[in-house]
Amino acid sequence: MKIALAQINPTVGDFSGNAALMIHFAAQARDAGCDLVVFPELATCGYPPGDLLERPAFIDANLDCLHYLVETIQGIGVVVGYAERNPDNAGKGLFNALALFENGEVLFQVFKRLLPTYDVFDEHRHFEPGRACEIFTYKGLRIGLTICEDAWNDPDTFAQRIYAEDPVERLASQDADLLVNISASPFHIGKRDFRHRMLAALARKYAFPVVHVNQVGGNDSLVFDGTSAGFDTSGTLVARCRDFEEDLVVMDVAKTPAMASKGQIHPVATSDPDSVLAALVLGTRDYVHKCGFKQAVIGLSGGIDSALTAAVAARALGAENVTTVFMPSGYTSGDNYEDTAQLARNLGVAYRTIPIDAIFTAFVTHLSPNFDPAAPGVTEQNIQARIRGTLLMGLSNQSGALVLSTGNKSELAVGYCTLYGDMNGGLAVISDVPKTLVYEVCAFLNTDREIIPGRILEKAPSAELKPDQTDQDDLPDYALLDAVLKGMVEEFKGADTLIQEGHDPAAVRDIFRRVEVNEYKRHQAAPGIKVTSKAFGSGRRYPIAKTFRPLR
Amino acid sequence: MKIALAQINPTVGDFSGNAALMIHFAAQARDAGCDLVVFPELATCGYPPGDLLERPAFIDANLDCLHYLVETIQGIGVVVGYAERNPDNAGKGLFNALALFENGEVLFQVFKRLLPTYDVFDEHRHFEPGRACEIFTYKGLRIGLTICEDAWNDPDTFAQRIYAEDPVERLASQDADLLVNISASPFHIGKRDFRHRMLAALARKYAFPVVHVNQVGGNDSLVFDGTSAGFDTSGTLVARCRDFEEDLVVMDVAKTPAMASKGQIHPVATSDPDSVLAALVLGTRDYVHKCGFKQAVIGLSGGIDSALTAAVAARALGAENVTTVFMPSGYTSGDNYEDTAQLARNLGVAYRTIPIDAIFTAFVTHLSPNFDPAAPGVTEQNIQARIRGTLLMGLSNQSGALVLSTGNKSELAVGYCTLYGDMNGGLAVISDVPKTLVYEVCAFLNTDREIIPGRILEKAPSAELKPDQTDQDDLPDYALLDAVLKGMVEEFKGADTLIQEGHDPAAVRDIFRRVEVNEYKRHQAAPGIKVTSKAFGSGRRYPIAKTFRPLR
Repeated sequence: MKIALAQINPTVGDFSGNAALMIHFAAQARDAGCDLVVFPELATCGYPPGDLLERPAFIDANLDCLHYLVETIQGIGVVVGYAERNPDNAGKGLFNALALFENGEVLFQVFKRLLPTYDVFDEHRHFEPGRACEIFTYKGLRIGLTICEDAWNDPDTFAQRIYAEDPVERLASQDADLLVNISASPFHIGKRDFRHRMLAALARKYAFPVVHVNQVGGNDSLVFDGTSAGFDTSGTLVARCRDFEEDLVVMDVAKTPAMASKGQIHPVATSDPDSVLAALVLGTRDYVHKCGFKQAVIGLSGGIDSALTAAVAARALGAENVTTVFMPSGYTSGDNYEDTAQLARNLGVAYRTIPIDAIFTAFVTHLSPNFDPAAPGVTEQNIQARIRGTLLMGLSNQSGALVLSTGNKSELAVGYCTLYGDMNGGLAVISDVPKTLVYEVCAFLNTDREIIPGRILEKAPSAELKPDQTDQDDLPDYALLDAVLKGMVEEFKGADTLIQEGHDPAAVRDIFRRVEVNEYKRHQAAPGIKVTSKAFGSGRRYPIAKTFRPLR
Repeated sequence: MKIALAQINPTVGDFSGNAALMIHFAAQARDAGCDLVVFPELATCGYPPGDLLERPAFIDANLDCLHYLVETIQGIGVVVGYAERNPDNAGKGLFNALALFENGEVLFQVFKRLLPTYDVFDEHRHFEPGRACEIFTYKGLRIGLTICEDAWNDPDTFAQRIYAEDPVERLASQDADLLVNISASPFHIGKRDFRHRMLAALARKYAFPVVHVNQVGGNDSLVFDGTSAGFDTSGTLVARCRDFEEDLVVMDVAKTPAMASKGQIHPVATSDPDSVLAALVLGTRDYVHKCGFKQAVIGLSGGIDSALTAAVAARALGAENVTTVFMPSGYTSGDNYEDTAQLARNLGVAYRTIPIDAIFTAFVTHLSPNFDPAAPGVTEQNIQARIRGTLLMGLSNQSGALVLSTGNKSELAVGYCTLYGDMNGGLAVISDVPKTLVYEVCAFLNTDREIIPGRILEKAPSAELKPDQTDQDDLPDYALLDAVLKGMVEEFKGADTLIQEGHDPAAVRDIFRRVEVNEYKRHQAAPGIKVTSKAFGSGRRYPIAKTFRPLR
C-alpha cells in the first residue's frame, strides 16, 4: 500500500487555509498513486489551539472543516486529526480525534487515549481520553491508528511511565500489520533523534512498519520540526520528510513482513547548531507572518545576541523586510558603531542610528538631578534600556514592523535584562538559546562566509550601561552559568546536587537565588522560540509570590 | 466531636512559616477543647505551587514539613493537605494528599481523586488521581475525607459533569457520619454562595454534617476567600469563618442525626462590591508582602482606575507605604491637578508631580521631527504612556517600592492600554475588574465618607494622550462593552449569539476583533487579581499567532 506522509504547516484557527492546504496535498498524493494520505494531529484547527477549544463556534468550524474535506477529497483514503465532541454528559466535552475517510464517508474514528499534560502540553484541560483501541482494516491491511502520545509509553523506552496503559501494545496484540501515528510533536535539541529511535524500537519490537506524520511550522513558542518518518519491520528508517518545511513523501508499505517497505528519505539538519538555526528561522517567520506582520525591527548593540537575532530575521523574512537600529549612548564603545554597520551591510538590511543621550538627560533631570555619569546605578542603567525599548516601539508604531527582542536564555534566567527595556518586543527570538549555544549557532552561520563580523564574536559581552562594564563583572562565567542552569532548569536538579557534582557552591547558590527572584520578569516576557527540553514560558509555570524556605 | 476549622494563609514554598502557622492554630484548637483540627489542601507548601512540584527538593521539604508537624503537634487529631510521592512506576509521580495524624502517628491517608484541570487549575499536570475511597473512623465517628474537587461532582448540582465518578457518593454509600473537605478554592464573584449551596445540598442529600476548610490569602492572581463553613444534616449553615482573613472556628459535630451540630458563624462581606474590594485589598497585600516588598508606587491620572488602585493599595499596605505620582503633559486637564492631589490627601499617601513634556519633546525630536501637537498619532500617544511607565519604574528602582499598574479589565480586553507604558508594574490590581464594576466598587468605598473625590467619579474617562480625547471616542459605551465581554469571555458565547441576544452587530464584531488581536498585550501583562469567573491570565490560554477564519 502506498501511503503519503503529508507534512503540512497549518495556522491555528485558519480552517479555510488549512482545508485548502490539505486538499492540495491530497491531490498530490493521489497523483502519485497513493492509497492513503496521512495528515497530522488536529490538522483542521492547527496545534496547539489552547483555550480556543472552549469556544463552541471554534469546534463547529473545525467540524465543518472536517465535513468539507470528507465531501471534497475523492479517490484516496485520508487520515486527519480534528476535535470531536464527547456526546456523554460525564467527562470533558471533547476528544482529540482522528478520522479515516474515503469518497465521502468516514470509515473509522480514533480518540486519543494518552493525553500529555506536562511541559507545554495541556491536553487534559480540554479532552476526555479515548478508551477504545481497535484495529481498522483498510485495503486488506490491519492498521493500528494512534495519535501522538498514544505511542509514547513503551516500557522499554520509558523507565517511569506516565500512563498505566499502552495503546501500541494493545494494537499490536490484535495483529496489526502497520502502526500509523499522527502527531504534533514540537522540536527541541535531541528530540528528533529520540523520537525516531523510539518509533524504530516499536517497529522492531512488534515487527510492523511504522508511519509517523508530524506537523511542521511555528506556533507561538513552539516550532514543529516535521521530519515525519517511516520505518520498516526491522526498525530501519525507509522514509523521511524534510525538517522545518512542508513536505510530502511516499512510502510503500509492504503487506507482509517478508516484503520490504520503502520510500524516499529527504535530507535534514545534521548538527545541533544547524537544527537550532533552522528552528529559529522557521519560528520567527511563522510567528511574524501568522500574526499578520511582514516586517521586523531590531535594536543592534554591537553584541552577539542582537547580531544573531538580526541574522535570523533576515533569513526568515528577507533582508528587505528587516530594519536594524543602533542606539548609542555615551557608554557605547567606538567599535560598536563600526561593527553594527558592518553586520547590517553583511545582512543587507536597513540600518539607522538614533542616539539616546538627549532623552537620557531629560529623564535624569527629573529622577536623579545629582546624577554622576561615571557611576550610573541600576535606575539610570534601566532608563537607558527603556529609552531604547520605547524608541523601537515607536518605530514599530510608525512602520508596522514587529519588534524582535534579542535577549538570550542565560540572561533571562538570572534577570540580567530590563523589563520594558531590552525585553520589549513581540517575539524573543533567542530567549531559549543559552549564551554558549548562541556562540555555536553564530559559528555555524559563518561557516561559508563571514555574516557576523569576527569582532562581534570575539569581544567580551557587555550591556554598556555604565563605563567599562562587562557581563562577567556582574555574572558568573557563561560556561559555568549555562551548566548550572541546564542542571537546574532542564534536569530539575537541586543546588545541593549541583554542588556535589563539583560546581562552585557560592556560584550555584547565587544562580539559584537569581533565577527564583526573577520569575516576575519572565512572567511579562514576550514568547520565545523553544529549542531546549525546558524553556521558560508556557512549559514552566512557576509562582511569583513564593519563597523556598525549607523547615530546617 | 469538636472540630476546629483552621483557615490559614500559607505562603507558597515557605515550609518553615507554614509549619509555624499550623502549630500555632493547632495549639489554639487544642486549648479550645477540640478533638480535631482541620487545615486546608496542600497546606504544607501552599496552593498553587505550580511547577515547584517538579523539583525533588521541594517535595522533600514538603514531606519534611509534614513529618515535623506529626512529631510536634500533640494532644489533638490533625487533618492536613500535603504532596505525597507515588511509589508506582506508572503514572504521575505525585498525589495531592491528605494525612490524618495524632500524637506522632499518621493514622490515615487520602489521595485526591478528582483533579481539576481547567481555568487556573493544572492538577493533572502534576498529580496521579487517587483510586481508594474509604471511610476512616476517628473517635467513633465514621468520617469521609475529601480534598476540594472530590466534592464538586454531584449530579444534582452539575448537569455536565467533568468526571465519571463521585467520591462523595462512594463515601456516603459506606455510611459516613460526617464529610470533611479540605480545600483551596479561589474567590470569584458569586463563588462563595455557589460553594455553600453545593455543600449544603450534599449535607441534606446524604444527611451528614459537612465541614469545609478553605485556604485564605492571595497567591499571585488568585485570592482565596476562606469562608470555611460547616453545615448540619439539614444543610443549614452552623459554622463559618470570616472571609479574606485567617480565622479559627469551632464546630460541634453531632454524632447522631438526631442531635444538632453547632458552631460559631463569623461575619462575611454582604455584597459583590464589598467582596471584590476585600479581594483586591488582600490580593494586593499578599502579593506585595509575599514578593518581599513593603511599599508601592502608583501613577495617578485623575481618572477612576488609578484612584481605585491607590485606595486599594493604601488599605492593603498602609497609607504610609504608598507613593502616588502625577505625571502631567500638555494634554492634561487642569481638573486633574486638583483631583489627584485631593485623592492623595483623602488617602493620606505621599504625592509627587513629574511633568513629562521635556522628555516627550526629546523623544519626538528623534522619531517624529515634524510632529503636530494638535494631532498626536498612536506613536506619540504611546510614547507618553511609556515615559510615565519608565518614570514609575525609575522611582521603583530608587525606592524599592513595587509599581502597581492601574488598568481595568475592559481596556485590557480590547487593548486600550499601552504595553511597556501604563501596563508597567508588578501587579495589575484591577485588571480583572470591568469598568462598570470599577464604578460600583468606588461607590461602595465612598459609602461612609468621600475617599475618591466626586469629580473623579463623574468625569468622562479619558486617556489624555491627545487634545479633547475621551474613551468613548475610541471605544463602545462601557455598559455595552462590558456586557459583550462578559458574554464572550466569561460565558464563551460566539458573536452570532450575542447579536441574536440583541447587541449591536457592528459593535459586537468590533469588540471580538479587538479582543482577538490584542492577545499579545495580555501575554506580557503583569498578573492581575482574579475576581470574575474568567480572568485573563493563567486561566485563559490563548495562542497569539492565530486567526479564526471559518471555512465558509
